[in-house]
Amino acid sequence: MVEVRVNAGRQWDRLMAMAKLGAIEGEGVNRACLTPLDREARRLLAGWAAEIGAVVSVDEAANLWLRREGSEPGAAPVVTGSHMDTQPNGGRFDGIYGVIAGLEALAPMDEAGLRTRHPIEVVAWTNEEGGQFAPGCMGSMAWAGVKPITAFAEVRDPADVRFADALAEHLAAEADLPRRALGGRPHAYLEAHIEQGPRLEREGVPIGVVTGIQGSRWFQVTLTGETAHAGTTPLRLRRDAVQDFVRAAGALNSLMSDPDDVLRFTIGRIVVHPNTSNSVADRVEFTIDLRHPNGNVLVARGDLIEATIKSAARNAGVDVRETFHAMPVAFAPEVVAAVARAAKAEGLKALRLPSGAFHDAQFVVPVCPAGMLFVPCRNGVSHNPAEYATPEALGVGTQVLARALAALAGA
Amino acid sequence: MVEVRVNAGRQWDRLMAMAKLGAIEGEGVNRACLTPLDREARRLLAGWAAEIGAVVSVDEAANLWLRREGSEPGAAPVVTGSHMDTQPNGGRFDGIYGVIAGLEALAPMDEAGLRTRHPIEVVAWTNEEGGQFAPGCMGSMAWAGVKPITAFAEVRDPADVRFADALAEHLAAEADLPRRALGGRPHAYLEAHIEQGPRLEREGVPIGVVTGIQGSRWFQVTLTGETAHAGTTPLRLRRDAVQDFVRAAGALNSLMSDPDDVLRFTIGRIVVHPNTSNSVADRVEFTIDLRHPNGNVLVARGDLIEATIKSAARNAGVDVRETFHAMPVAFAPEVVAAVARAAKAEGLKALRLPSGAFHDAQFVVPVCPAGMLFVPCRNGVSHNPAEYATPEALGVGTQVLARALAALAGA
Repeated sequence: MVEVRVNAGRQWDRLMAMAKLGAIEGEGVNRACLTPLDREARRLLAGWAAEIGAVVSVDEAANLWLRREGSEPGAAPVVTGSHMDTQPNGGRFDGIYGVIAGLEALAPMDEAGLRTRHPIEVVAWTNEEGGQFAPGCMGSMAWAGVKPITAFAEVRDPADVRFADALAEHLAAEADLPRRALGGRPHAYLEAHIEQGPRLEREGVPIGVVTGIQGSRWFQVTLTGETAHAGTTPLRLRRDAVQDFVRAAGALNSLMSDPDDVLRFTIGRIVVHPNTSNSVADRVEFTIDLRHPNGNVLVARGDLIEATIKSAARNAGVDVRETFHAMPVAFAPEVVAAVARAAKAEGLKALRLPSGAFHDAQFVVPVCPAGMLFVPCRNGVSHNPAEYATPEALGVGTQVLARALAALAGA
Repeated sequence: MVEVRVNAGRQWDRLMAMAKLGAIEGEGVNRACLTPLDREARRLLAGWAAEIGAVVSVDEAANLWLRREGSEPGAAPVVTGSHMDTQPNGGRFDGIYGVIAGLEALAPMDEAGLRTRHPIEVVAWTNEEGGQFAPGCMGSMAWAGVKPITAFAEVRDPADVRFADALAEHLAAEADLPRRALGGRPHAYLEAHIEQGPRLEREGVPIGVVTGIQGSRWFQVTLTGETAHAGTTPLRLRRDAVQDFVRAAGALNSLMSDPDDVLRFTIGRIVVHPNTSNSVADRVEFTIDLRHPNGNVLVARGDLIEATIKSAARNAGVDVRETFHAMPVAFAPEVVAAVARAAKAEGLKALRLPSGAFHDAQFVVPVCPAGMLFVPCRNGVSHNPAEYATPEALGVGTQVLARALAALAGA
């Protein structure tokens, strides 16, 4: 194989340029998908892609694609990439690293005169985070055929914008870019990402060879009581949705208890109505995010959520909707092996580990051989402005990515 | 005394005309103070006042005054009125009834050729509800000298508008109205209001002679944890502000337990940050509304709130600020007696009862002899579109109000 060296400095500069788009206090980023900021970031990326002759296109789910041709006509592409949107209070690396790393992996192949048999495509999936329009991974789900993109049309963001409207506005703004069909059957998929957990850093290992992704189930719960005057209505006569939320949360904590601390249970979003200090709440909406690497646990606990809330609520009506469901997945042995081999060839220690976070990669699994590689991030912190990975760690990760992609694409 | 008969039909029509300004689904009203809707309502009121020759003016807290002169030069006015703002999901009678009833009580005095010794003034106090800018009763507190209006300058509504800016904009819009000095020492104060509780209706009594108001304490609590990725961060390592809110609410429920069901404890407002389903919350802000007719109970329980939350919270930092504090008040015997006598003169049954809700009247108590009268409302429901009182019940209340005002003003 021709020796390919990625440029860690250029990659860092690009990450920092991207971090300016939506920069928030404390070196964080708030760049929601399908917004003007998102479009600015995508234009910036497309400009860098054009510099190395990669062809830019967009599909009807607004996934953005950069393609470097291979030598064999008609060969299926090897796809890499991740997402460019962030959490509302997000960091500078989650998602965007995988996209920039994919681009960075292409450039030195040109510089080294390396021609792969398969084309290599870099993808930026739409709305991985689900921070504005829930659930996340809409772009990769639509691409993989899990759900048509129209299935999300009526989802609304906190400002009450319909997803379909945001998507239409976005596609209109990118009408000058070539459109490509949604879907495909790549030769392989490999996504680079910061670990978003503490293991690599703690064990001093530069490369995580990701073996799979734990399963996730998201629920949206609505408790409907009755509003009343806080000063006059006896507590016994109230149908206070906040109080039933407190009861429900307590019961759910018991349901989800796990001495091994492997199960992940989070109530991250609460919306109260009318949300004034002197009115009893007539409605509380809240979310549940449940994850576990064992599919049986995920099914058993998740399926008890509705009954648990219903027995805990004393006065409020209970509505539970499952908004997202992803069973645990195992990555393809050949992609896992390609990452492990690339790390070894670079003389780097590597750790096999499952992913605690979900990623677009999990929806690619049924479509083609897929995998991921992780790089360490500071204290395992993510979804937070404090998220950080060193330029060197990110460069090493991209070096392994480039080597693995070249191998998968038939260098 | 000249016989004065109020016009219940006209009063109802005016209430319904007011209810159109900010009408929401289910016959409710959402008319926040110091908004264009509020200004429209005040202009409508001022127009009706002009029809009977009452003089309109506004003070620097934007309290709106309608004055009917008395026969004795320099005599202190008898003041009646209430407020025109509503809860965000409010009804058609809370507050506005007392203002419209005050106006309605004046008209037939003219029609009957009745001249009182003292002037009678109708006041519409600014921001009684505190639904947008907390606390409530800013207008009456500023008027009574409890706090200068500038003390509320930096309070922000949910749209992040400063109270001082909203007030300045409002006063500019009413620059054509005569300005009057803030404060005064009325001869007496009498406020009519729907009961906002179930007693009068349940006992079939048309008039409530209000003996006083229970005390209220409001608190704003902030729990500060740390955000983290919901999929990767072990629960043991989290500083989840939502989970500490659940613990705090449970502990507060124990602190506030009252077998007699006299104590009123409400968590009505919760704001979570970043409030996304897949991020651990780093901040929960919530309100506490505590009320009790016994000042000792109010002090004892309220003073334990901070310590209770601090022992309950496991990981989050705890900040507790008291935003409103009103000890129980007793109304002036002469005003209470005037209401009871007026009801008796009308041949109506009356019930002596304390107010469960707080009202602007409680801030008037230290300034001059003050009192209130209640009319029954359906199911005791208030702060809700379902709030309702019959045209007849409201007319009867205003009839008693007119008679009591005339007596207090020296008919």
